[in-house]
Amino acid sequence: MKKYNPVTEEVIEELRAALGAEYVRVDAGTLDRYKTDEEPDPHYHHLPEVVVLPGSTEEVAAVMKIANKYLVPVTPRGGGTSVSCGAVPVCGGIVLLIERMNKIIELDADAMYMTVQAGVLTKEIQMRANEVGLLYAGDPCSAESCLIGGNLATNAGGNKAVRYGTTRHQVYSLEVVTPTGEITTLGGRLKKCSTGYCLEQLMMGSEGTLGIITGATLKLLPLCPYRVDIFAVFTDVNKAVNLVPMLIKAGLNPTSVEFMDNAFVRAACDYSDIRLPHYEDGSYVIVTVETYNEDELDSKMEKLDEICNEAGADYVGEADERVWTVRRNCLEGSKALSKVSTSDDLVVPQNLIATTISALCEEAKKFHFKVCTLAHAGDGNLHFNMLKMDMSDELWEKEVKEFHAICYKYIYSVGGRMSGEHGIGFKHVYDLEKYCDPVELQIMKSIKKALDPNLILNPGKLIDVE
Amino acid sequence: MKKYNPVTEEVIEELRAALGAEYVRVDAGTLDRYKTDEEPDPHYHHLPEVVVLPGSTEEVAAVMKIANKYLVPVTPRGGGTSVSCGAVPVCGGIVLLIERMNKIIELDADAMYMTVQAGVLTKEIQMRANEVGLLYAGDPCSAESCLIGGNLATNAGGNKAVRYGTTRHQVYSLEVVTPTGEITTLGGRLKKCSTGYCLEQLMMGSEGTLGIITGATLKLLPLCPYRVDIFAVFTDVNKAVNLVPMLIKAGLNPTSVEFMDNAFVRAACDYSDIRLPHYEDGSYVIVTVETYNEDELDSKMEKLDEICNEAGADYVGEADERVWTVRRNCLEGSKALSKVSTSDDLVVPQNLIATTISALCEEAKKFHFKVCTLAHAGDGNLHFNMLKMDMSDELWEKEVKEFHAICYKYIYSVGGRMSGEHGIGFKHVYDLEKYCDPVELQIMKSIKKALDPNLILNPGKLIDVE
Repeated sequence: MKKYNPVTEEVIEELRAALGAEYVRVDAGTLDRYKTDEEPDPHYHHLPEVVVLPGSTEEVAAVMKIANKYLVPVTPRGGGTSVSCGAVPVCGGIVLLIERMNKIIELDADAMYMTVQAGVLTKEIQMRANEVGLLYAGDPCSAESCLIGGNLATNAGGNKAVRYGTTRHQVYSLEVVTPTGEITTLGGRLKKCSTGYCLEQLMMGSEGTLGIITGATLKLLPLCPYRVDIFAVFTDVNKAVNLVPMLIKAGLNPTSVEFMDNAFVRAACDYSDIRLPHYEDGSYVIVTVETYNEDELDSKMEKLDEICNEAGADYVGEADERVWTVRRNCLEGSKALSKVSTSDDLVVPQNLIATTISALCEEAKKFHFKVCTLAHAGDGNLHFNMLKMDMSDELWEKEVKEFHAICYKYIYSVGGRMSGEHGIGFKHVYDLEKYCDPVELQIMKSIKKALDPNLILNPGKLIDVE
Repeated sequence: MKKYNPVTEEVIEELRAALGAEYVRVDAGTLDRYKTDEEPDPHYHHLPEVVVLPGSTEEVAAVMKIANKYLVPVTPRGGGTSVSCGAVPVCGGIVLLIERMNKIIELDADAMYMTVQAGVLTKEIQMRANEVGLLYAGDPCSAESCLIGGNLATNAGGNKAVRYGTTRHQVYSLEVVTPTGEITTLGGRLKKCSTGYCLEQLMMGSEGTLGIITGATLKLLPLCPYRVDIFAVFTDVNKAVNLVPMLIKAGLNPTSVEFMDNAFVRAACDYSDIRLPHYEDGSYVIVTVETYNEDELDSKMEKLDEICNEAGADYVGEADERVWTVRRNCLEGSKALSKVSTSDDLVVPQNLIATTISALCEEAKKFHFKVCTLAHAGDGNLHFNMLKMDMSDELWEKEVKEFHAICYKYIYSVGGRMSGEHGIGFKHVYDLEKYCDPVELQIMKSIKKALDPNLILNPGKLIDVE
């Protein structure tokens, strides 16, 4: 990685002049707090030299101008919920928090859009839309604590992507500060556009390497008034995964299709102190269907029940709050089994999710770690959670590496990618370098260098450029 | 614009060696044929120096390597249906036809996708999907003669964008030859992806300035078995345009909502020798609604009728083939009135289409040309067709310029853009330069220069870089 200049007292003074002294923090407690995001492994941690809290787009731009002037790196940070070290300041320098920019600027229920600053909680956006009978369809699992700016930067996925797509599909336009400190708006509130390059989609998912998203105009949808949640339990895990393509093909247009294997069911039931059917031997598929009218709901419920039975479910029931609590507590439950764990974020074509889970679970049996499998199965997104248990550090590291290599090789061979929703961050830069098509990688690097000539913005993330 | 080297005999020889002599054409007839696309005005025409017909992606790449070696420009061409001079070789050099690459490579009805070469007729893709009960939802008005590669390059719109979006929304992945002659695949057959920059969306709509699209994997959708087409006639044009937002708000999810003013109705009826209700004084709104079941269709038809009456329609009827013939013949009909004409392609937020049509039609009254108004009203896309009639050349040119300036100023002030579906091409490069946000423009230019360092690919189009 490139070398940068240290943050000197001169830099701090300029930042203070631009933002106000109280929004420029250099105390040890603050620096320590922002050395990591959701990443627990201290090997990945890195202290920033200063943490800034701009209150406006103009102040974000001012920070970028200062950073370019003094050649110090800037790591933008939303809610800090990245599990790929996306918000770790791996080169030190400035951590830029967007949390003060937390206003909902406009909500037009008639024209069905909401304009927000990047620091608004995703949960708040969802709630505000619901209050006027509308849906903001972006729904990452961390919605309670993540900020919309982070969702936009990583193209966050979540539970509803089967029906509504990911964050990038919920957006009309973005307000962006470029790496060189200019302000622009990309995209527009338009159903059609053939006026220049589609820069808003390039910006989304670029993980803060091409610009800092400071605001967005989001699409809202009519809220479906009818909803059913069912869960189907299978003692044969292969039958459970095979249910998924059957559901999709039946045209049920589900809002979500979630798979959890028995290892996760047990761990999460234990953690939640809840007993569910076939706790000992059942894999679960949870399906949500939403409709605009009751008749459609009735006919889809019937169809759903029919398909689950046809697939060989040992139990089909309503997925009430207890089931969803178990689903939500999967990761916490697995942490109770093993303090050290690591998770994948593989994604494959939707119709290959069943064969992929089967094939890779078979491979996992050759290793000493324990694997729990969770999948946003309706959209081909798969999280293997590997638990270290009582393995030695050396064996653990060796085996995780080996299993990742097997997974990546397999999923790339079937047209998949290494990250469905978590992003590459710092953690997977070298994996991407290895598995990404070299021409595609070269295009990405060329664009990065063209837009960020000093390589100031979120260095060390997504791609390695010098 | 940049100066390029001429296509010498040496270049021709290399092209022949790469593609075979019969696919490298320098005869006067061929060169003349490719001096323009749909552009009738000879001021815009420009002869190529050679026309090549590569038969494979590798051959397209070979042409780009040769072009870079000798610094001669390359203008890629699909069906040549551009109305923005998108396929005119304004700097001479090589015209590259993709029409030999016309194979459908794979159609998977189960997994609902189709992989095609870029030279396949859009119409053929639609038909092949229909044959297996599926829909390819891209539907530009030129579907009979345009090629999918051109649709992808310009992000073509058309009649169904209200419900399904434009071409860019129908795509999983693209096969692309870069300006420097490398081959890559961008995107994947995935519902979710957070693995690197979203280059496939950047490529689409870049009008062949960032790469040559040689193939694509397209999304297919279940075909709606039920459909109704109605047309509502209004003697008060303001009531007609006000129907549009009412339809959208009612949640009817129409497949298309087309508006044509009385000038177009008369011209197209005359041309088609068809008489329709209120020929003398009626503006038309044609609405298509498609559903998956009959009950839904019935209830939507009822609602549709109710809204049209509420809006003050003077007549509501089924839009049969005669009505659609009139709609299709609008442009031909207006050509019968005036050989010389020019059309806009404005786009505004959907909910502002009515006020935009009213405001700009009012402005048009101050000029001497005749205006016919056509709108893909459901998606905010508006085509003013200006007819020269018997105006002098000088006055015509002056007034068209003035009216464009008024239109652009207005639509940019309400968050619109100058092209909804036709693209910028060569014709609107300087308009874009003027109205585009300067930071956005700078980003586009930086990306162009980064990916096409010799500025070889489709020079003079979309943006002006040196």
